[in-house]
Amino acid sequence: MPTEDSLATGQRSLGDPALDYPLWPPLTAGCPRTSTEDVSYPVEVDYAYDKADPAGLFAPAPVRGGLERWAPLLPPLLAPGLGEGATPLVEVSPGVYVKDESRNPTWSHKDRLNRCTTSAAVGAGAPGLAVASSGNHGASAAAYAARAGLRCVVFTGPDTPPNVDAFLNAYGAVVLPVPWEARWPLLRQVVDRLGLHPVSNLTTTHTGHAYGPEGYKTVAYEIFQDVGLPSAVFVPTGYGELLFGVWKGFVELHRLGLTAGVPRIHSCETAASGPLAQAIADGLPATHVTVGPSDAYSITSPVSGYRGVLAVRSSGGRALTLDDGQLADAQRELARAGLWTELSAAAGLAGLRSLGEPDLSDGPVVCVSTSSGFKDKGVGTRRTEPVAPDWDAVERRLRAAGITG
Amino acid sequence: MPTEDSLATGQRSLGDPALDYPLWPPLTAGCPRTSTEDVSYPVEVDYAYDKADPAGLFAPAPVRGGLERWAPLLPPLLAPGLGEGATPLVEVSPGVYVKDESRNPTWSHKDRLNRCTTSAAVGAGAPGLAVASSGNHGASAAAYAARAGLRCVVFTGPDTPPNVDAFLNAYGAVVLPVPWEARWPLLRQVVDRLGLHPVSNLTTTHTGHAYGPEGYKTVAYEIFQDVGLPSAVFVPTGYGELLFGVWKGFVELHRLGLTAGVPRIHSCETAASGPLAQAIADGLPATHVTVGPSDAYSITSPVSGYRGVLAVRSSGGRALTLDDGQLADAQRELARAGLWTELSAAAGLAGLRSLGEPDLSDGPVVCVSTSSGFKDKGVGTRRTEPVAPDWDAVERRLRAAGITG
Repeated sequence: MPTEDSLATGQRSLGDPALDYPLWPPLTAGCPRTSTEDVSYPVEVDYAYDKADPAGLFAPAPVRGGLERWAPLLPPLLAPGLGEGATPLVEVSPGVYVKDESRNPTWSHKDRLNRCTTSAAVGAGAPGLAVASSGNHGASAAAYAARAGLRCVVFTGPDTPPNVDAFLNAYGAVVLPVPWEARWPLLRQVVDRLGLHPVSNLTTTHTGHAYGPEGYKTVAYEIFQDVGLPSAVFVPTGYGELLFGVWKGFVELHRLGLTAGVPRIHSCETAASGPLAQAIADGLPATHVTVGPSDAYSITSPVSGYRGVLAVRSSGGRALTLDDGQLADAQRELARAGLWTELSAAAGLAGLRSLGEPDLSDGPVVCVSTSSGFKDKGVGTRRTEPVAPDWDAVERRLRAAGITG
Repeated sequence: MPTEDSLATGQRSLGDPALDYPLWPPLTAGCPRTSTEDVSYPVEVDYAYDKADPAGLFAPAPVRGGLERWAPLLPPLLAPGLGEGATPLVEVSPGVYVKDESRNPTWSHKDRLNRCTTSAAVGAGAPGLAVASSGNHGASAAAYAARAGLRCVVFTGPDTPPNVDAFLNAYGAVVLPVPWEARWPLLRQVVDRLGLHPVSNLTTTHTGHAYGPEGYKTVAYEIFQDVGLPSAVFVPTGYGELLFGVWKGFVELHRLGLTAGVPRIHSCETAASGPLAQAIADGLPATHVTVGPSDAYSITSPVSGYRGVLAVRSSGGRALTLDDGQLADAQRELARAGLWTELSAAAGLAGLRSLGEPDLSDGPVVCVSTSSGFKDKGVGTRRTEPVAPDWDAVERRLRAAGITG
């Protein structure tokens, strides 16, 4: 047993601390000597405390999360934070890392953006935020608005999954489901008439908030801190703001003399829309497309923006499109690695896998996973078939699943 | 505008980088000079890059998450991790911090335990894990089993909320809904017959896994690193394993000479069951109670264990019980601070609030919030009433919510 890092010495009875047992096997039914028919006494693990280095081990932590870590290269952070960012990289196959953005305050990358856009609203003296969103962006805006003591109005679609509807309503925002085509005109009206600060796009092709992608730069900063310069980053792409932010962060690292270059930034859109891939194919700064059916509702966008074109073209990246089958395969691969992601969030890994064996000769590859599986369509609509409470029925179900001991 | 930390200098057009604008106001509709009727060009934020300190700002990060950080004081970590732990403290009122455990890999504190118990299964050479769970514990075990290449069998109840059912199934575990009273006998059978490693309790009163609470100690370690020695910690309490782990962590810090004492550790149970409070009232090491109705399904437990008694008694803590109304109030307070928690997870703050004005004379107070609001009963069962897509209807809805510009 490789125990070189652990100072664990054995198991000690809580029923009688004078009783101890070896570390292996774990006593999964408590202390065998003090437990009675009525009361079972647990055990705990004991350590060679005299061999520990308390000063080194418990040195004060750097702040855990919070974009203030990166304040010099962000717009003024005038809105209070929620410990956003500082998400881990999880290696899912050799040299392939997943940046798990579901570890953020509202369990998506959007918190990095909303710390910055809510700060803009505070700086502008607005009484609240207005946002149009299919889910993650709206809930995140609602959370940061609540934290800053601002109101929040969220225009959402009539087909928002009920689990995501609960999420949008969780932070006290006013949630207004309207037909999709009505969202933008109504957003402009609440901004013009009530002075709410818009944290969603207001323009013909997508521009988004001026300060939003600045928050996303910190994804690149953290990747650099963790693994140095990757060769490529695969980014789930709706409007391309995260894509641009990640690219800009790496451009800044290069500009500051910290890296020899900028990784290829690959956009990963759903094939049901793919306006960025279309704009790049057509040599346009941005374009509109018709949207087909897809369950990847968080990245199904009818319009792109120039930010995405800039990031993909300048970095030598590719504009990839993935169908729902490819997204579902990537989602399953992530679950096997212990990460339950939203279908849209699996687009980064799906993009990587669509290119065949990863090329790791220039360094590791990072796939951003934007969000948690709890936000998927269909979550909360089904229940597993019960099993009869007897061994034969249980054994049949286990055998069918390939578990035979 | 307090911008002393930010090096931001202004906004620059992406349509023509020679064009720039002041930092305020944020150009929420992109570049006004290069945008046309067909294509809108965004802006980005520019900085005084020459004033940045790249070496200091981008120094390599300490590892983000992962219990390996604490390996000396944990049992051998033989199972691969998912970047568990390293969750932020969020200040929700002066001197009152919330330890937000929803930032873990499966969005609850259980990941700290399952890193340790799955390691025990790997060390024991078991082919898989067996667990009885109403939600968080089972899904977390499933995730760590998947990551370690082990199988996982989860016995759950017939009334598992459908959103939680999706969560339990997400990582490839075999999920078997059975009547509650059948869970323990069946768990023992899969352990005995198939050699699966039990990561749930097997005994009459609760003992739990020998290595489990060791993972929870790291909650105390992180709190100490972040704010030093708190005066009290309020812990949502089902079987009392987290409670014990937090207490033990602080006891170790004291033993290692790092602190002058141990905070009061208060258990926060639902009033619908409260077996720990009952055991303490009756002077027993553990007891059984009948369970009344409560929506706090993650902490509604019919049985307690000696670990909880030890933690509360030894630390001078109180065994608090909270009704669903108190839990809902605390859940709303957390949402107003930007944190959407499971109802059960709000028990820590509910416990604090049940004692009146917090006493901060001996240091800050920490309330542990164990899990995300996505796991609550009822999530995914309702949809917000749509609003007619015209200004009058929208204005009426906003006015009713108190938003009038």
